[in-house]
Amino acid sequence: MQSDRKVILITNDDGITAPGIRALVEAASELGEVIVVAPDSPQSGMGHAITIGDPLRLDKVDMFEGINSWQCSGTPADCVKLARDKILHRKPDLCLSGINHGANYSINVIYSGTMSAAMEAAIEGIPSVGFSLLDFKFNADFTLSKVVVKDVVSRMLAGGLPPHFLLNVNIPNIKEVDYKGLKICRQAYAKWAEEFEHRKDPRGKDYYWMTGKFINMDIESGSDVEALDNGYTSVVPVRIDFTDTKTKDWLHDAWGF
Amino acid sequence: MQSDRKVILITNDDGITAPGIRALVEAASELGEVIVVAPDSPQSGMGHAITIGDPLRLDKVDMFEGINSWQCSGTPADCVKLARDKILHRKPDLCLSGINHGANYSINVIYSGTMSAAMEAAIEGIPSVGFSLLDFKFNADFTLSKVVVKDVVSRMLAGGLPPHFLLNVNIPNIKEVDYKGLKICRQAYAKWAEEFEHRKDPRGKDYYWMTGKFINMDIESGSDVEALDNGYTSVVPVRIDFTDTKTKDWLHDAWGF
Repeated sequence: MQSDRKVILITNDDGITAPGIRALVEAASELGEVIVVAPDSPQSGMGHAITIGDPLRLDKVDMFEGINSWQCSGTPADCVKLARDKILHRKPDLCLSGINHGANYSINVIYSGTMSAAMEAAIEGIPSVGFSLLDFKFNADFTLSKVVVKDVVSRMLAGGLPPHFLLNVNIPNIKEVDYKGLKICRQAYAKWAEEFEHRKDPRGKDYYWMTGKFINMDIESGSDVEALDNGYTSVVPVRIDFTDTKTKDWLHDAWGF
Repeated sequence: MQSDRKVILITNDDGITAPGIRALVEAASELGEVIVVAPDSPQSGMGHAITIGDPLRLDKVDMFEGINSWQCSGTPADCVKLARDKILHRKPDLCLSGINHGANYSINVIYSGTMSAAMEAAIEGIPSVGFSLLDFKFNADFTLSKVVVKDVVSRMLAGGLPPHFLLNVNIPNIKEVDYKGLKICRQAYAKWAEEFEHRKDPRGKDYYWMTGKFINMDIESGSDVEALDNGYTSVVPVRIDFTDTKTKDWLHDAWGF
């Protein structure tokens, strides 16, 4: 590896064969020395899972021309841990996760395997980004996404970032001509209204499929949902300290200690 | 169900047969109308996973005397979603998760299935708590834990809680005589220093087991780790908005928009 180029670890949660990670590798390899450690199969909806009770497999693969790549039997968070301990033997300079096929804005940050990998790196003090495109299709068009990756990563490589720097970046599913640029946002207050579809299996036994619709309950300006609706890429800085300081103040007062 | 008693949904991530959930059911059923919807097998380390691509099973079981109980093939977060949509057909008044066999303080909040269930409920506006005992053994002693559950839940049933009320409660593994009471805390800054043990399987192929040790890098007072070290139960209020407002301010300034 050339010593003047930054080492960029790339992972994802759609699996190493997904077109989204290929687009991310292509965009990032123009800016630094890329290595890829990604799940060997899709992991969506895994949240911040780690593999405790099972052994992990890690195999070198020839996936991306000129890029050292490994596939791993674990989760996105496992990939980040293994990359550091068994492959790099040091922290990478940046960690990029994605590009996810589908949105991870608003409350989806907590369900997102894409973001869990980035969060795992940020806990270690590695500046990290999760990239997601608002198109869940396998053959989604990542042309605009590659422009966004280069824009965000170039800014990060300029350095001087705050500690535990972690971004949740969501890219609108629009043409470049309609694209307005990056917007720094807060996480929208929204939730999923789940419904479970009840079916019977061939043996007559009940089962359920999760379905649901996303409900944005956020009417104030400045949210990621709003930015995306208006043709921007949303950039939400994410914290790793989950303490709710407002409720903490309330508790001290209400519980009297 | 008696109309004057609050409906308390109980779940966990160690699975419905774990002694920890039995202790939680016993303590909570003195305070409200308990229903149990819990995973049919252990789910530890699942983070905030949800089951998207697989059907879910949900079966009524006779586990706890006089308590309506269901086991579910999904994750703790799935249990909360299914309980609301397919069993209660309404929001419960409280959601309690645990009692986990093992700690979930500090950064473990993000890996914790116990907390993911409580967080899922809090997103829905259901006041929620994840309880964890600092003893991972199957036959851990939950005597003190039951006292703690009654203390915390009684306070919550007094009402007037802030919106999206969510607590991460960790209980020290000590005798009642040494116990100091509840302490309201912030999440300690800590991380796991993972190492992966490299082995070869009987066919000569490499695999890895995750091992690691917890490193507390938090030297200031007021953290959950400190409280537990001093014989208190740590009570950390947890937020569902992960926006890092400090880094957001830095970004507006540094990136100039």
